[in-house]
Amino acid sequence: MRLRVFLLLNLLAGLLLTAGGATADEGMWLFNDLPKKQLKEKYGIDVTDEWAEHLMKSCVRFNVGGSASFISSNGLVLTNHHVGSDTLFKLSTAERDILKDGFLARTLGEELKAPDLELNQLVEIRDVTAEVNAAVTSELTPEQAVAARRAVISKIEQEASDKTGLRCNVITLYGGGRYHLYHFKKYTDVRLVWAPESSIAFFGGDADNFEYPRYNLDACIFRVYENDQPAKIEHFLKWSPNGPGEDEITFVAGNPGRTSRILTVSALKFQRDQRIPFVLNSLCRRELALQQFGLAGPEAARRAKDELFGVQNSRKVYFGRVNGLQDPAIFAAKTSAESALLAKVKADPKLASSAAAWDRVAEVQKRRGELLGKGVTVSSRLFEIAETIVQMVEEDQKPTGQRLPEYSDAGRASLEQQLYSTAPIYPDLDQMQLADSMTRMVELRGADDPVCVAMLNGKSPTDRAAELTNGTALADVAARKALVQSGLAGVRNSTDPMVAMIRALDPEIRRFRKLTDELDELERQAYAQIANAIFATQGTSTYPDATFSLRLSFGPVKGYIEDGKQVPAWTDFGGAFTHELAHKGQENYDLPPSWHAAKDKLNLSTPFNFVSTADIIGGNSGSPVVNKNLELVGLIFDGNIQSLTGDFVYSDTQSRAVSVHSSAIREALRYVYKAEELADQLGK
Amino acid sequence: MRLRVFLLLNLLAGLLLTAGGATADEGMWLFNDLPKKQLKEKYGIDVTDEWAEHLMKSCVRFNVGGSASFISSNGLVLTNHHVGSDTLFKLSTAERDILKDGFLARTLGEELKAPDLELNQLVEIRDVTAEVNAAVTSELTPEQAVAARRAVISKIEQEASDKTGLRCNVITLYGGGRYHLYHFKKYTDVRLVWAPESSIAFFGGDADNFEYPRYNLDACIFRVYENDQPAKIEHFLKWSPNGPGEDEITFVAGNPGRTSRILTVSALKFQRDQRIPFVLNSLCRRELALQQFGLAGPEAARRAKDELFGVQNSRKVYFGRVNGLQDPAIFAAKTSAESALLAKVKADPKLASSAAAWDRVAEVQKRRGELLGKGVTVSSRLFEIAETIVQMVEEDQKPTGQRLPEYSDAGRASLEQQLYSTAPIYPDLDQMQLADSMTRMVELRGADDPVCVAMLNGKSPTDRAAELTNGTALADVAARKALVQSGLAGVRNSTDPMVAMIRALDPEIRRFRKLTDELDELERQAYAQIANAIFATQGTSTYPDATFSLRLSFGPVKGYIEDGKQVPAWTDFGGAFTHELAHKGQENYDLPPSWHAAKDKLNLSTPFNFVSTADIIGGNSGSPVVNKNLELVGLIFDGNIQSLTGDFVYSDTQSRAVSVHSSAIREALRYVYKAEELADQLGK
Repeated sequence: MRLRVFLLLNLLAGLLLTAGGATADEGMWLFNDLPKKQLKEKYGIDVTDEWAEHLMKSCVRFNVGGSASFISSNGLVLTNHHVGSDTLFKLSTAERDILKDGFLARTLGEELKAPDLELNQLVEIRDVTAEVNAAVTSELTPEQAVAARRAVISKIEQEASDKTGLRCNVITLYGGGRYHLYHFKKYTDVRLVWAPESSIAFFGGDADNFEYPRYNLDACIFRVYENDQPAKIEHFLKWSPNGPGEDEITFVAGNPGRTSRILTVSALKFQRDQRIPFVLNSLCRRELALQQFGLAGPEAARRAKDELFGVQNSRKVYFGRVNGLQDPAIFAAKTSAESALLAKVKADPKLASSAAAWDRVAEVQKRRGELLGKGVTVSSRLFEIAETIVQMVEEDQKPTGQRLPEYSDAGRASLEQQLYSTAPIYPDLDQMQLADSMTRMVELRGADDPVCVAMLNGKSPTDRAAELTNGTALADVAARKALVQSGLAGVRNSTDPMVAMIRALDPEIRRFRKLTDELDELERQAYAQIANAIFATQGTSTYPDATFSLRLSFGPVKGYIEDGKQVPAWTDFGGAFTHELAHKGQENYDLPPSWHAAKDKLNLSTPFNFVSTADIIGGNSGSPVVNKNLELVGLIFDGNIQSLTGDFVYSDTQSRAVSVHSSAIREALRYVYKAEELADQLGK
Repeated sequence: MRLRVFLLLNLLAGLLLTAGGATADEGMWLFNDLPKKQLKEKYGIDVTDEWAEHLMKSCVRFNVGGSASFISSNGLVLTNHHVGSDTLFKLSTAERDILKDGFLARTLGEELKAPDLELNQLVEIRDVTAEVNAAVTSELTPEQAVAARRAVISKIEQEASDKTGLRCNVITLYGGGRYHLYHFKKYTDVRLVWAPESSIAFFGGDADNFEYPRYNLDACIFRVYENDQPAKIEHFLKWSPNGPGEDEITFVAGNPGRTSRILTVSALKFQRDQRIPFVLNSLCRRELALQQFGLAGPEAARRAKDELFGVQNSRKVYFGRVNGLQDPAIFAAKTSAESALLAKVKADPKLASSAAAWDRVAEVQKRRGELLGKGVTVSSRLFEIAETIVQMVEEDQKPTGQRLPEYSDAGRASLEQQLYSTAPIYPDLDQMQLADSMTRMVELRGADDPVCVAMLNGKSPTDRAAELTNGTALADVAARKALVQSGLAGVRNSTDPMVAMIRALDPEIRRFRKLTDELDELERQAYAQIANAIFATQGTSTYPDATFSLRLSFGPVKGYIEDGKQVPAWTDFGGAFTHELAHKGQENYDLPPSWHAAKDKLNLSTPFNFVSTADIIGGNSGSPVVNKNLELVGLIFDGNIQSLTGDFVYSDTQSRAVSVHSSAIREALRYVYKAEELADQLGK
């Protein structure tokens, strides 16, 4: 595998985009700073403001962690099955497993309302860097700086929200180098229209995840409502009649979650040697605990499945990352790029003082290492609910700008939608996760740690979890509302055992939060300097690391060579049946009966999945892939295994973004799911 | 769950056995120090020397980590399927999966020779404490003490072996308080006679492992040969006609692997807060890596299965241990017992100086914590082979008493049996394990560590593992022999990449080994003092922690109460079919076709599995269970989940040893496997 690290070197060395047409298609670009010159020069494409606005407003963010797009004037939203799965799971019961068996609403009346889904459409971006920086001056202590930044951001968000009625969030970019205010239109009445069976959405299971070639219909369709009517949507994507051609340039608009490309070598070493191994161990422990839980029987397996899928997925991502970071060649390249940049910075009298920022980042990593795993980390929905309520009634005593940001007035409606969600909580699953995570917390802090002693209250983690789960009333939404209603006094006097435990743990939760907030602040300040040094040496025509905010990526549809063999850009429906046969008898390799029944009616040469060189990462799942005319040609659902190093380096040698082809969705709706009417609405 | 910690308190406080008939049936007793008085008083049983000798000599140790017994005069040996599984796996191929499908030899000629199995029969025990202690004087440094102890033990073993022609090993007992010389008769021609399908041996899979009630035929039968003829066995167990009755006293003779009951509180804290979490994380990582490997297809799954089973089993054991140690009640009891003993020691002028031993143990734990995970730990058979050869040719330059013990002359034949085993090595599996364990080693030591840099040689763990696996010749037994033949010069000049890597790593392997050997030595010296303090306050009538040497445990057949419900002592054949039905469609819950075919002929009320209160632990698997007349009534194969805290405390409230009933084995042989002739030989 030859990773194209040199492009990243260019970025860090301040040379990006000077090489003109020879550059690869790296970048997760801001919609208010698109690489227009590059697109014009390399692909002859004029990116107009109208083009950009239409694409931006056709996009939808799933706040559970994915991307999506409007695909009709009457509110249809297309995303991945695995992005919708959180809702599919919450809508399922022991009797009706929508996540597994799929769903189709034949009428508006049959559409199923999601219990707690919020979709956000980005409608405006404003640069507020000057305003934020003016409030956070260099003489403040880290603690004061955290408070000052929090206050000014809260003020900016609140004022914008008051003025526009929109959800307004300040997004931190370039690790702290820029602050942009994003205005979102919120949709909170979201209903499920169609989902296929998980056996075709996740065909090949964990084994095929992050592999290619693939044959997955990882798609589902929701509809947004306003005033109990399908929302009227101005900006939506037309459906391409045939999808993209080989080597055709395509665009991906979505919300990549996080990349670490600006990270200094010391920060990458912390990731490589400490944080990623720690996370990997935690994920493996959780994965096995969920597997074990599922062994009790089919219903237990169903309850654990959605979370298990997420944990498995992350585990595979982190394995990819550690493998990349442990490659001495990649790391040597990062190191020499940093040296080159630092030499440039030190040689420039205006920048020389910035060199200390690298040392400050290194210092922060050391302290992060000391804190790793020493927090209060408990995976249990009931624990989280109690924690939210205990903290909220406390925070509400302060003016909004002084609160922990998640308890601000501006965010309250979204918070309450989560807190009062009617999504089922399975006590057996929740209890297992509570016990498992308490066990792990006791391992990490040591059983003699006073916080652990208080948490366990004289019992083993297993027995304590049973006591808490059986004793708390918070599984009931009405009980949550009543507890919030009872206010600070009520919460302080509550005898609910989960609430009582959170009261005992809250000082430690806050102490730890303060420490990490201050480290974040120190790092933000350091990266702001580093980013400015990069801007000063190369101009601002670059892209910031991903922050789960809307970005544009692009690249041609293109196969690649692996182990000396050509991997084609496309798969087709016929390949799915061949793939099934090749893995006969293996778990997760049975196509659903609906596909077998429809086989005769399907055009088996219909393209199914395809790959492109677009620069994507987790969070891009569900992103629309469009051609230059902004017609939808695909739906991002994965990257191949080689793309997993994309967290810190972009490559177009073998790394590929993997999409469901638009024709596959249309044909499957028509011939497998007999959803003619829905198929007719696509792009209309 | 009420754990009978008080008995352990008694042990530590020096009160054991003074309470007479009221004591529970705790103890893994030495065959040269059996609790005759206790058995007489509580059960009215006279344990004669003949009784003890017959039982001792009827027992067989599987050096892969299990127990067994002679069950016929013509060499038949009974053990668990999961003890034999290492051999069943090595005898299997892609075309003939003996581990999964079972095996029956209808003639002697059809019996399959194990590629590298060595069975040991204990024939004599001699106390050599004085001789060992005379050689290791208190003025020696830890390094000198390690060498002196090694030399004297090597001398004792070599002399005994020369004199008797037997395998002779000095066993360290009471953590260093006593040294006994064990004489073993070796059997190295061991052939497989019968094994059932893994689906009945491991019915219920990982989900049912360590659970009860159970329905498992976890048994298989080998035969030992001498001079290519079935060995003539003097001491073997008769087969009980009906098995044990409820509440009947039974005896278990086997090789419990390791317990930690003498451990000081500081040592238990090290286990609880550091070592066990570390091991758990490693096990979970390995388990998922093996699972992932198996997803590639049925043959990959077969190759990974035996190791996966072992890792799963250990993971469940370690979860049980951490859960027990994190229970504040258990830990408080251990702490107060230690305080009581220490108070007694300090108050006795003759013992007071021993109190410092507890501090020395604590000091060792601190240093163990610093070393945890910092060694060279690589799981790969090809790596191990290269390591053995590189070290062996180096060690062979020294006199036997100065070598690392595993390279002594006395042990050479056993070592060579392993080294030159013809058991298949699957390069794909071995490569994955090599990559996975190198990844983990790099995580633990940090990628900048010079040893890791040397190990990876500029490549990622994945690429380096491929290079090593493809490049080494050591999969071939002839190549191993040739390399050994080439001697020190040959090994030093070898261009085999695996050998070259081991040469680079060996100094670090030896440096680390030296550090841990010295810590072991310090701990042995401290525990010798602690043990002597215990002997001084209570006499020597107690049992030492398990050391994978032959012990006697005992206790009645007895059900228990769990969640308010009575769990019966027995299950029966009929229950297996009911259990299958209750778990229909779940993995590992399908009885094999042979059982369905035989259902009509089976007496469904035949007892299948039963529980007793005997004090057992891992390593006891395959132990014979006998009645007072030394008739075989059962075959230990598991402990229930409550017994997993048995590492550090014994309880008879809910903890149970789980056995296959002798009648189940006989009836299954007769009616399911149609092995009448074999069934007729049992106990004859």
